[in-house]
Amino acid sequence: MDVVTYVRGTLTVLDQTRLPQEVLRRGLTDLAQVEVAIRELQVRGAPLIGIVAAYGVCLDLCAQPSLQAAQAQAPQTLSRLRATRPTAVNLFWALDRMAACLSHLPAQGWAEALEAEAAAIHQASRAQDQALAQHALPLLAPGARVITHCNTGPLATGGLGTALGALILAHGRHGGLHVYVDETRPLWQGGRLTTWELAAHGVPHTLICDNMAAALMQQGGIHSVWVGADRIAKNGDTANKIGTYGLAVAAHHHGIPFYVVAPSSTLDATLATGQGIPIEQRPSAEVTTPRGLGMALPQTPVWNPAFDVTPGHLIRAIITENGIHHGPHYTL
Amino acid sequence: MDVVTYVRGTLTVLDQTRLPQEVLRRGLTDLAQVEVAIRELQVRGAPLIGIVAAYGVCLDLCAQPSLQAAQAQAPQTLSRLRATRPTAVNLFWALDRMAACLSHLPAQGWAEALEAEAAAIHQASRAQDQALAQHALPLLAPGARVITHCNTGPLATGGLGTALGALILAHGRHGGLHVYVDETRPLWQGGRLTTWELAAHGVPHTLICDNMAAALMQQGGIHSVWVGADRIAKNGDTANKIGTYGLAVAAHHHGIPFYVVAPSSTLDATLATGQGIPIEQRPSAEVTTPRGLGMALPQTPVWNPAFDVTPGHLIRAIITENGIHHGPHYTL
Repeated sequence: MDVVTYVRGTLTVLDQTRLPQEVLRRGLTDLAQVEVAIRELQVRGAPLIGIVAAYGVCLDLCAQPSLQAAQAQAPQTLSRLRATRPTAVNLFWALDRMAACLSHLPAQGWAEALEAEAAAIHQASRAQDQALAQHALPLLAPGARVITHCNTGPLATGGLGTALGALILAHGRHGGLHVYVDETRPLWQGGRLTTWELAAHGVPHTLICDNMAAALMQQGGIHSVWVGADRIAKNGDTANKIGTYGLAVAAHHHGIPFYVVAPSSTLDATLATGQGIPIEQRPSAEVTTPRGLGMALPQTPVWNPAFDVTPGHLIRAIITENGIHHGPHYTL
Repeated sequence: MDVVTYVRGTLTVLDQTRLPQEVLRRGLTDLAQVEVAIRELQVRGAPLIGIVAAYGVCLDLCAQPSLQAAQAQAPQTLSRLRATRPTAVNLFWALDRMAACLSHLPAQGWAEALEAEAAAIHQASRAQDQALAQHALPLLAPGARVITHCNTGPLATGGLGTALGALILAHGRHGGLHVYVDETRPLWQGGRLTTWELAAHGVPHTLICDNMAAALMQQGGIHSVWVGADRIAKNGDTANKIGTYGLAVAAHHHGIPFYVVAPSSTLDATLATGQGIPIEQRPSAEVTTPRGLGMALPQTPVWNPAFDVTPGHLIRAIITENGIHHGPHYTL
């Protein structure tokens, strides 16, 4: 399934806000549309945001008449894309790569070279996903019952996925996996996207509300918890979808291993700890009025952070394409 | 605000499924309507379920032409009401009281005597709520920031409420309270009912998704957590709305006191521990398709327990109308 495709002039994305009812692809033809697609979560998932941003640079700059014009335009292009979402570091990592590429483009074939860089980021992500899943395999015994949060499958990366990719691969290899899926309020990425992907891959699964995960652990039989990441500090502190921290605390209380799966581009080498990670605050209406449904009076005060930070010491291991990093003490 | 009123032939309840958009009272005129009102959560909250069931007995039996006819009908009436919801013990406690009353009714004025018993249960609940809140007051310092789950206010008891009643009283006395409200998936009792009641009482509050509570505790400044109960075993194990257990685990991890507030009718003296508490499983559609909104494909397998059991050792104190019972070791 193509989550994102690019040909000059059109960046086509699967609008994830419409799933699972509707599989709708949108052809984005200018930078403003790319900004909206990222900001409104038509595309989401830390690795995918990076890929879409890289293609967004191409969409905007390859329309320029010359390399000189593209380079003159580039600072504004990059800065607009940087401003779309603050937490996932893959966005900034991908834009840094595109910026570096822009400064060394040949006068002849500059647009093709820029597009090749975006395609290389996309292709590298696919290869990383395979490596991530391979490294995670030994941690997933046949018959394992696991919990996951948010969506970290193909929809989140344009490849196999990170945490969910590992689960899908393990089920394909050993069979017998059962995945409990947190619905992931306020935007239901678990309910809408993860169950849809698990069904498509034939992986047995059960949907729960986020507040049921601890009770499920209490009943016994949960082998491990698997999540992705939006930004990881050097000490292993991990920003991920809101609710990840509570899930990690519950896993810790029950002695259940908690695993983070993410490409190395999610590591932020500039941060010693998670304290410096900026946390995106989202609109109140996501909580009070989901999809227009009045579940609280609209004037109700709301706290709606999109992410939280799980301390490294609660994470049993962090799996990147380079291998398994064992906790609780990390030097990444 | 009248949550429930009874005059012979009509039991009037506030339909809590319509709040906060609509304040709709329904006049129930037969037992089948009472069963539906309880089962579909038009009335909910452990103490209120008991009160409504007691009035439901009157509605059904006082329509009988004689005491003899009423007593002949009673077993079926009681058994139908007992079958409406399994977890909250107040339902069974109230029906046991009505059954005992039924066996000692005078031939003259039997209907009035039966109605007086239901009214006494209702009135005792109001008095208990005041006592609960008074006992809890010393645990709520001025300026306290607290978290609550589900709804335990006037809507849950027909009086001041249990946990939320204590918070409302404390705010009235000291001022300065701030209440963080878990929305409480899947039925949003926190978002729909608790924020509505706090706004009505002028208590500052902030709505959060259930999965945000741990991150809120992590940021510091949360003084305590306050919840009600549907059934409490002798060792303090407490069945309450799903999500309570995860909240208790998170509070424990952060060293934050976790308080349960409930009338003594919530104690189940037949249970040594919480293991024997029956947990109601609710329909999948509450999770996949809230209010008709497709948040997962309808065929998605779901686990949807309405309650979970928090071990007594995670509870700092249990407050009943008889006073404060301090944990972690309870002999109730």
